[in-house]
Amino acid sequence: MSRPPRERIIETARDLFRKHGLRGVGVDAIAEAAGTNKMTLYRHFGSKDELIAACLTEAGCEALREWDEWEAEFADDPMKLLHEWISCALSCAIEDPRGCDIANAAVEITEPEHPARKVIEHFKTEYRNRLARLCRQAGVKDAELLADALTLLVEGARVSWQSVGAKGPGARFVEISEAIVAAFARQAQLSADMNVSANI
Amino acid sequence: MSRPPRERIIETARDLFRKHGLRGVGVDAIAEAAGTNKMTLYRHFGSKDELIAACLTEAGCEALREWDEWEAEFADDPMKLLHEWISCALSCAIEDPRGCDIANAAVEITEPEHPARKVIEHFKTEYRNRLARLCRQAGVKDAELLADALTLLVEGARVSWQSVGAKGPGARFVEISEAIVAAFARQAQLSADMNVSANI
Repeated sequence: MSRPPRERIIETARDLFRKHGLRGVGVDAIAEAAGTNKMTLYRHFGSKDELIAACLTEAGCEALREWDEWEAEFADDPMKLLHEWISCALSCAIEDPRGCDIANAAVEITEPEHPARKVIEHFKTEYRNRLARLCRQAGVKDAELLADALTLLVEGARVSWQSVGAKGPGARFVEISEAIVAAFARQAQLSADMNVSANI
Repeated sequence: MSRPPRERIIETARDLFRKHGLRGVGVDAIAEAAGTNKMTLYRHFGSKDELIAACLTEAGCEALREWDEWEAEFADDPMKLLHEWISCALSCAIEDPRGCDIANAAVEITEPEHPARKVIEHFKTEYRNRLARLCRQAGVKDAELLADALTLLVEGARVSWQSVGAKGPGARFVEISEAIVAAFARQAQLSADMNVSANI
């Protein structure tokens, strides 16, 4: 309760939206659970839609901060980070079977003019671009394509977990992703070998 | 209006759920748009949750009927059907950027005891198993793994379309899927060649 109301409201809203869906909980319940009132909530966010946008911004920033930490930790070995990212994507999904807040919001929000739309697009694009940069740093030849493939696989794994649970197709996410990374890495090696022979 | 109320209600509900989300539209609006009343709706379905389950059952049966037609059409060439499935998965997503009703429901429905949960699990499992059977018929060695990979890619493509639009990672769904099918087919060919040489 010692933290500022804005922080408390965002934390509470993220938790309740996750449990009940964006439309499954109203501002009254959020304000009450955050130990404040609706007027304070509206003073900080203006509307429920803006509160949703603020919650997704927080979720997106969290994911990027985690990425920054990974990059610092594995700065000298991008391929190792790529493997780490794959196994972490799986463990995140196991720990939290409700999937990705931002992707879920993309499904739940049907209005094209909702203020959260731009937040969703911004963070999903940024995350995918960081993955592409990592693939390039790891020496993958077609880094853009590998980043797209891994993005589709991880998004698919999270939605599949919500449909059929942990024993469904998502259970083999790591195996599939590692096989694809290996195929792309082989291609890069092949290409490097060819350049070496061309230079002889 | 000449069709039975049950059919009219399901058709209308599917359309409205798709446009506004499962929680974005109530039974009153559905009954009115279907040219009937709430009492008739409840007599046929008992509750909004059961109506949602009935709508998803209809969507699932439609997808399986389409699959039956494909199987009949490409009975003598399962590999051709696999390619057809990939290009069709893309065109379906382009035609309907709201993605898959059943996967979307898995995200929107947060209650574990919701009657739609079993419907979601049944159809997603059946569809994935048909894809695995097709991969086996097409001579793919690790058909189960390829079916899981394609399932994750198509689920990912549909949710990615909803996050970042048609120009995001989903745009390369066909390219990625075809590359993976080719890698699996090469593996099968390699294995067949090895058997031939072992038999010589």
